Amino acid sequence: MGKFEHNLDVRYYETDQMGIVHHSNYIRYFECGRMAMLDEVGLPMHKIEETGIMLPIISVECRYKFPARLGDRLKIVTWFNELPRARFTVMSEVYNQDGQLLVEGSVSMGFIDSATRRPIRCPKTLSDLFAQYLNQ
Amino acid sequence: MGKFEHNLDVRYYETDQMGIVHHSNYIRYFECGRMAMLDEVGLPMHKIEETGIMLPIISVECRYKFPARLGDRLKIVTWFNELPRARFTVMSEVYNQDGQLLVEGSVSMGFIDSATRRPIRCPKTLSDLFAQYLNQ
Amino acid sequence: MGKFEHNLDVRYYETDQMGIVHHSNYIRYFECGRMAMLDEVGLPMHKIEETGIMLPIISVECRYKFPARLGDRLKIVTWFNELPRARFTVMSEVYNQDGQLLVEGSVSMGFIDSATRRPIRCPKTLSDLFAQYLNQ
Amino acid sequence: MGKFEHNLDVRYYETDQMGIVHHSNYIRYFECGRMAMLDEVGLPMHKIEETGIMLPIISVECRYKFPARLGDRLKIVTWFNELPRARFTVMSEVYNQDGQLLVEGSVSMGFIDSATRRPIRCPKTLSDLFAQYLNQ
Repeated sequence: MGKFEHNLDVRYYETDQMGIVHHSNYIRYFECGRMAMLDEVGLPMHKIEETGIMLPIISVECRYKFPARLGDRLKIVTWFNELPRARFTVMSEVYNQDGQLLVEGSVSMGFIDSATRRPIRCPKTLSDLFAQYLNQ
Repeated sequence: MGKFEHNLDVRYYETDQMGIVHHSNYIRYFECGRMAMLDEVGLPMHKIEETGIMLPIISVECRYKFPARLGDRLKIVTWFNELPRARFTVMSEVYNQDGQLLVEGSVSMGFIDSATRRPIRCPKTLSDLFAQYLNQ
Repeated sequence: MGKFEHNLDVRYYETDQMGIVHHSNYIRYFECGRMAMLDEVGLPMHKIEETGIMLPIISVECRYKFPARLGDRLKIVTWFNELPRARFTVMSEVYNQDGQLLVEGSVSMGFIDSATRRPIRCPKTLSDLFAQYLNQ
Repeated sequence: MGKFEHNLDVRYYETDQMGIVHHSNYIRYFECGRMAMLDEVGLPMHKIEETGIMLPIISVECRYKFPARLGDRLKIVTWFNELPRARFTVMSEVYNQDGQLLVEGSVSMGFIDSATRRPIRCPKTLSDLFAQYLNQ
């Protein structure tokens, strides 16, 4: 429990002239994994934003082990080891169809009140919900 | 008068595994050319949007003659043959540093009131401004 | 028979500051639909390219009816009305989860020998395969 | 000496529905800064690749301080504190037109022989060239 999986196929436009997926796209794959996690938890991002909260990114780190290529079906694994407070750190791994780890990293988000654009703590309704899915 | 030029370099992430700029990026280059045109006219897009108007895209067409590659410095030529009314059609051409025509096309936009999200006619202040730059 | 369907979710990074999917991304959705069609036909693009053939884009046209938004699950419908010869024209439609037509368009591709980078006719093995899937 | 500056304007398609530049795009801005650095050094990336060397990305880290918005003219500052050996680490900062630091980070690349796809050390011709531009 606590690890979420999301599959996606490499898209042609995501490749570059090295013949592999451009490194910036894994940051986007991480986001796809986080969005799918929020969907599964029952709180998709567009619903969160409708409540007047935005989650801007504070930091990203990403280590590249092995390239993805066109024709690869990727598995994005997403989880979090700590409950969100002022920030929310989410871990990500990307595997190919052979189970090979391609990329791993983490992304930290903050919480912002959309109206004031000021930082807030993670609302209790969210952190209570996330508490059920903490990776342990 | 009436034709606007904007230069940009091919970016690495815009190439694909054919070793050329991915075709979807020329649609984005067209946009860069239009934005630079609006800057030159003295009415950058973010200023237009601050007045409560948005310009969603209605149609795009694009013909590809010759590929752009990494290392190319591109010239985007942008102009319009008719004043904006309910819609605004902008023509675009992309050339490389050798003066070779790579891509040509056009993009039509509408005008939307941001508050109501309803279509409006092009505001007179805008069409008066554009009238000075009509390609003839 | 003859129409292929592919589902995809709007990705956060595909939205723009109008709060809708940026128009350039539908060109990429079209491509996703074409790639899924090739997969279903049993001839994925990376396999085609391994045989030394590339399919560069010759023209694109796209008409935008209604915007896609974050949270939308899109259906890409893809088909072709004529067999590939010197070029291959593929039609695309994008629908949202309510069955509303968002965008329609077409993309024409050529065939290139990867080694010589010269145009060729569509190889018979490909056109024979496609003949089974012609939309009629 | 040793710090390179490159200016670029925020592009419309780089914004997201938070009304700011999507976080993944700064990874691409970093790349633009690195490519401009290579141009200035006299060794543009497409020339490096023509010699049979590719520079795949090994790791990225990025800290976000303040968002970029449409209408912003950004300055990308790029430098390196150590000469390339098995890997090459490049530092990046992104500032807006008010001199405000928006994002900072670093990217590490490896060196690969294009033919064998195997890691190599940074060729001496490259490291000798870079030695003149080391940030000190």
